[in-house]
Amino acid sequence: MAKELKDLTKRADNYSQWYNDLVIKADLAEQSAVRGCMVIKPYGYAIWEKMQRILDDMFKATGHVNAYFPLLIPKSFLSREAEHVEGFAKECAVVTHHRLMNDPEGKGVVVDPSARLDEELIIRPTSETIIWNTYKNWISSYRDLPILCNQWANVMRWEMRTRMFLRTAEFLWQEGHTAHATREEAEAEAVKMLNVYGDFAENYMAVPVIKGVKSANERFAGALETYTIEAMMQDGKALQSGTSHFLGQNFAKAFDVKFINKNNELEYVWATSWGVSTRLMGALIMTHSDDNGLVLPPKLAPIQVVIVPIYKSQEQLDTINNRVNPMVEKLRSMGISVKYDNADNKRPGFKFADYELKGVPVRLVLGARDLENGTIEVMRRDTLEKSTVAIDGIEEYVKTLLDDIQDNIFKKALNHRSEMTTYVDTYDEFKKQIEKGGFIMAHWDGTPETEEKIKEETKATIRCIPLEGDKTPGVCMVTGKPSKQRVVFARNY
Amino acid sequence: MAKELKDLTKRADNYSQWYNDLVIKADLAEQSAVRGCMVIKPYGYAIWEKMQRILDDMFKATGHVNAYFPLLIPKSFLSREAEHVEGFAKECAVVTHHRLMNDPEGKGVVVDPSARLDEELIIRPTSETIIWNTYKNWISSYRDLPILCNQWANVMRWEMRTRMFLRTAEFLWQEGHTAHATREEAEAEAVKMLNVYGDFAENYMAVPVIKGVKSANERFAGALETYTIEAMMQDGKALQSGTSHFLGQNFAKAFDVKFINKNNELEYVWATSWGVSTRLMGALIMTHSDDNGLVLPPKLAPIQVVIVPIYKSQEQLDTINNRVNPMVEKLRSMGISVKYDNADNKRPGFKFADYELKGVPVRLVLGARDLENGTIEVMRRDTLEKSTVAIDGIEEYVKTLLDDIQDNIFKKALNHRSEMTTYVDTYDEFKKQIEKGGFIMAHWDGTPETEEKIKEETKATIRCIPLEGDKTPGVCMVTGKPSKQRVVFARNY
Repeated sequence: MAKELKDLTKRADNYSQWYNDLVIKADLAEQSAVRGCMVIKPYGYAIWEKMQRILDDMFKATGHVNAYFPLLIPKSFLSREAEHVEGFAKECAVVTHHRLMNDPEGKGVVVDPSARLDEELIIRPTSETIIWNTYKNWISSYRDLPILCNQWANVMRWEMRTRMFLRTAEFLWQEGHTAHATREEAEAEAVKMLNVYGDFAENYMAVPVIKGVKSANERFAGALETYTIEAMMQDGKALQSGTSHFLGQNFAKAFDVKFINKNNELEYVWATSWGVSTRLMGALIMTHSDDNGLVLPPKLAPIQVVIVPIYKSQEQLDTINNRVNPMVEKLRSMGISVKYDNADNKRPGFKFADYELKGVPVRLVLGARDLENGTIEVMRRDTLEKSTVAIDGIEEYVKTLLDDIQDNIFKKALNHRSEMTTYVDTYDEFKKQIEKGGFIMAHWDGTPETEEKIKEETKATIRCIPLEGDKTPGVCMVTGKPSKQRVVFARNY
Repeated sequence: MAKELKDLTKRADNYSQWYNDLVIKADLAEQSAVRGCMVIKPYGYAIWEKMQRILDDMFKATGHVNAYFPLLIPKSFLSREAEHVEGFAKECAVVTHHRLMNDPEGKGVVVDPSARLDEELIIRPTSETIIWNTYKNWISSYRDLPILCNQWANVMRWEMRTRMFLRTAEFLWQEGHTAHATREEAEAEAVKMLNVYGDFAENYMAVPVIKGVKSANERFAGALETYTIEAMMQDGKALQSGTSHFLGQNFAKAFDVKFINKNNELEYVWATSWGVSTRLMGALIMTHSDDNGLVLPPKLAPIQVVIVPIYKSQEQLDTINNRVNPMVEKLRSMGISVKYDNADNKRPGFKFADYELKGVPVRLVLGARDLENGTIEVMRRDTLEKSTVAIDGIEEYVKTLLDDIQDNIFKKALNHRSEMTTYVDTYDEFKKQIEKGGFIMAHWDGTPETEEKIKEETKATIRCIPLEGDKTPGVCMVTGKPSKQRVVFARNY
């Protein structure tokens, strides 16, 4: 067994440590010299690139285009929208100077006090303000609408406690910012993008999510409505995985963005914004992986199939190479990414453990005996099951198996979520249940006060008010007041 | 003629103003509220995305992988490499605080003085320092080498004079950073990536470039050798379009990155770095465009073909639509990006001018008369020539035409460069010739002093010492001392 694997903490022993170990040992990311900022290593970045490419195609298929807006935001912009400043203007990186100079005492470089900026600049924590300041110049008539822009960018929030991928000071994300002529169109856009996120999470990441609306307490600073997809991790905690905001006319008012509507009247523009980030990497890792390492959905795995030869002589290796090379070519022509690892500086056992750790969905092993028998050994990473199958037609077999693994890990996660979801009607029962983790479906009277009380007493928050499913009214488990429908409570990342 | 086009300055009147006008009017980019930082608009970003995709594929085909390193660099890192700090630690954005607070006087937000960072952080002007600080942990043996990483990122240099795409405070780029076991391998890598850049410039951007080596004065701060591709703009000025640096062991020494080589000896690691940026957009615009607007090479045009119908009644439009729809489908199936603009809120003349301004390589116009005759009008953007051809087989015709346009604009640029390149043997002649612009091939004695004198007296710099072409020795035009070969002089952007 490989050294790296031996040191991986077991989930049952310490889930949090297991996660940290796995991020490091699977070569996904590591801490940098800058507090709270991570280095995304090539293997981790390859997964993020696959996510980006798929999401970008989905955005374009729904009519969006990409653009790029400045990294730095004038400090005064943040104060324009009253709620936004409360949410974002506090813990952030502030640029105050634009020059360094040689230290007069000869010790490296120091800030040049004469190069102080007239107005401080903030590294964007999110870009609504700079973008709406730009849209002001792009919009004058209903003919200029809608604007459907997205940007892929880095953003920075000076978080006190950071964890790789889940909460880092700098992170990578996409942020869509759209402008519309009517309230209805903007609301429909926010819901459309929520559905794109839900589709991506379930059909590519194989992560089941509940789509819903945030309560007022959990809304984005400056939004009238925040839609969210909420996933459940293996430890029963919730992870907010993507949000889509209906911003009303708040930012249009803050930046004075008006248009002439079809009735020739001047009106403020309606807005949405929506984003997912490298946090999705955390959701992916924590939903599927196990004590042997990563488990990746085939649709996002940088390497979908690895082939390892077993041989005792160069002659045997040559024979195996001759059989494997056309197999690799065939698999690639089918759009499957394959690595043939016939490097001779590592033993097969080491390779097996390493590819398990890295979550490669399918492993094929071919030895001299197999060649004689016309067979090949297949191992699927999700169940670790091995089987020996005919080498003829292996390419089609692998293709079907990859689809099967994609389906299976989604179902497994869905089953896990079902098992960890309980319906609770009393607050006493709630307090007991929340200690066991998972989603609790309970009635709530709709007030911020009750939500706050529950959070203080149990550390559970309302993850969302689900858009689909059971809408039966009831009474609040805490106050006994009327409730329109059950909402999802959980402790969360 | 469209309003936008009417206002475009002519190149002959004011080349610099023509460029600025064109960037704005073709919807490529605009100034933002932050000094020196631009907004890249969707049409401009679509061209950049095409560049990114092609370059990224070329990097991967040459064995590179992507990763991501932090935006912020501890101030002390910049001082580690003596030359690097001189080149990059001066005009840069300095983060000194990590929190804002409500203004005690009630006016928005102010910097919280208690949130001063122990060590200031610099927004990366380039990432050698933070990356080599990271590589230290990745490398211990020759088995860990080579490391072939690239990152796509934003960087910031506090430039005093900025021009959109050509020189902006924030810009987008890719930076490759590789680590090698031997000097030879690192040098070969630097040259390999120079050739990738040259291939991209000539075969995709249709911009002819001279590949060469920089003189010591023009070298990257911290490099032993800087390779460059130099392009000539229509006004005869040079534009440095991409650089690849052989860094020797400088950064390995600065960050103490050693490895055990095959002879079991401890040795410093050898390095390269290489980058191209959104500056390439400036090269693209200034090489091909004309007084009617952008001219884009088909391989980078977001829309390669636009089809405009001419009709007098809905019935005519319906007939045209029926003929065009399968044409669009066929063109798309051939991998050609097509826009069918049958919107009825703009007149054909407006559409024609707009697509010319945006540089769409091929325009097809179809009217009722054409349908009767079985013909279609084809306009190619590079020459503005119109012709009427048979509608049957138009798709193949267009495909061939796109290839032809790609070739033609490259040849046109190459001819322009030839016409604007002169061989000069005396300094007097040089001084006269440099006023006319263009590349001057002249002998130089190889000293920084002579180069500096020429720069001071003529504003011309040595763009590069060409790697290919005439290598005949001679005597320096200024000092009469021996010269190994002619070098390229020009005024530059």
